[in-house]
Amino acid sequence: MKQNRKGLLLVVSGPAGVGKGTIDTALIERNPDMKMSISATTRNPRPGEIDGVHYFFKSSEEFERMIENDEFLEYMHVFNTNYYGTPRLFVEEELKSGHDVILEIDVQGAMKIRDSYPDAVLIFIAPPSMSELKARLIGRGTETADAVEKRYATAFDEMRYMDRYDYIVVNNVVDVAVCRVEAIIEAEKCRTVRSEALINRLLGGSEKP
Amino acid sequence: MKQNRKGLLLVVSGPAGVGKGTIDTALIERNPDMKMSISATTRNPRPGEIDGVHYFFKSSEEFERMIENDEFLEYMHVFNTNYYGTPRLFVEEELKSGHDVILEIDVQGAMKIRDSYPDAVLIFIAPPSMSELKARLIGRGTETADAVEKRYATAFDEMRYMDRYDYIVVNNVVDVAVCRVEAIIEAEKCRTVRSEALINRLLGGSEKP
Repeated sequence: MKQNRKGLLLVVSGPAGVGKGTIDTALIERNPDMKMSISATTRNPRPGEIDGVHYFFKSSEEFERMIENDEFLEYMHVFNTNYYGTPRLFVEEELKSGHDVILEIDVQGAMKIRDSYPDAVLIFIAPPSMSELKARLIGRGTETADAVEKRYATAFDEMRYMDRYDYIVVNNVVDVAVCRVEAIIEAEKCRTVRSEALINRLLGGSEKP
Repeated sequence: MKQNRKGLLLVVSGPAGVGKGTIDTALIERNPDMKMSISATTRNPRPGEIDGVHYFFKSSEEFERMIENDEFLEYMHVFNTNYYGTPRLFVEEELKSGHDVILEIDVQGAMKIRDSYPDAVLIFIAPPSMSELKARLIGRGTETADAVEKRYATAFDEMRYMDRYDYIVVNNVVDVAVCRVEAIIEAEKCRTVRSEALINRLLGGSEKP
């Protein structure tokens, strides 16, 4: 029996290399009622990326028209070149029908969601240690040492936002981290602040002494 | 790997007949690192009650000396006859050694703990419906209709405090309720407000870019 019918908006952030994508994919696979929000972007698709699966690929004109129509929960303009944003409609419809929605977004986007949607639950995925994070960035083996250093500096900057999240989940063993996120979702649904309907049903009925 | 070393103080309340004792016993059985706080009282032991297991049975003089020595986390004087209280030492030692401690206490006691120990996590166990609660009180079959009505009125009064708790867990199926409390404990340990040591370790080390 569900205690709470409305879905949860779950914001998941964390530095590159921390494994948040792996965690989110596992969550979706294990919980068929959970939905992943798909971002929109004006950047070109990379090889293998499919429109409507990895991103909604938009022209700048389309994206700007969507901004004007208030169709984004949050968006940003990166380096004055590409737009990235979270389409509002998908998220709101899924939440209304009781599905939990995961937004995997960066710290800037997360802060915007926190301001515009205070009901959202913000989870920061952290590495077991910074040296482990560096090792994972190097381990990808696809980048020069310079590029790795740059990514590490960006990762460290993102880590500074950690304390503005509701929860911090260390990703040491993926399965453990996934279970912790699932526990957070279950616990949040029992929070008194989300239980107004339950309280009214119990105390407002005809069963007064 | 534990993310958080200090134990959680868990306050569990709920009206008579809601099954909070069953839930707490299951929690202790399933989690050997979890400890149940034992209350002290000046009332006489009932048949089968063992000193140090069900209660610490004290004389009024002993109890009042403990009050003077600030040995209670909370205490109350019922109907100007009996004292009930939560001895401080056991709780604090267990928390320090990393064990989670359950306090099964009434709403008045819970409010006192909330004020004196803001880190405590307050969980209210609620019945699926008020008619179900009444049925459970009658189902005990040990009391007159009058006594049941009186217990039900008291239960209803306690329910009015529900919205001052952090979490509300409906006890419909015991196993589900136990899992929800376990999820709450796991989630609370990931809360950013409890993760100061983790944040300092990650950001304060020598791994700055």
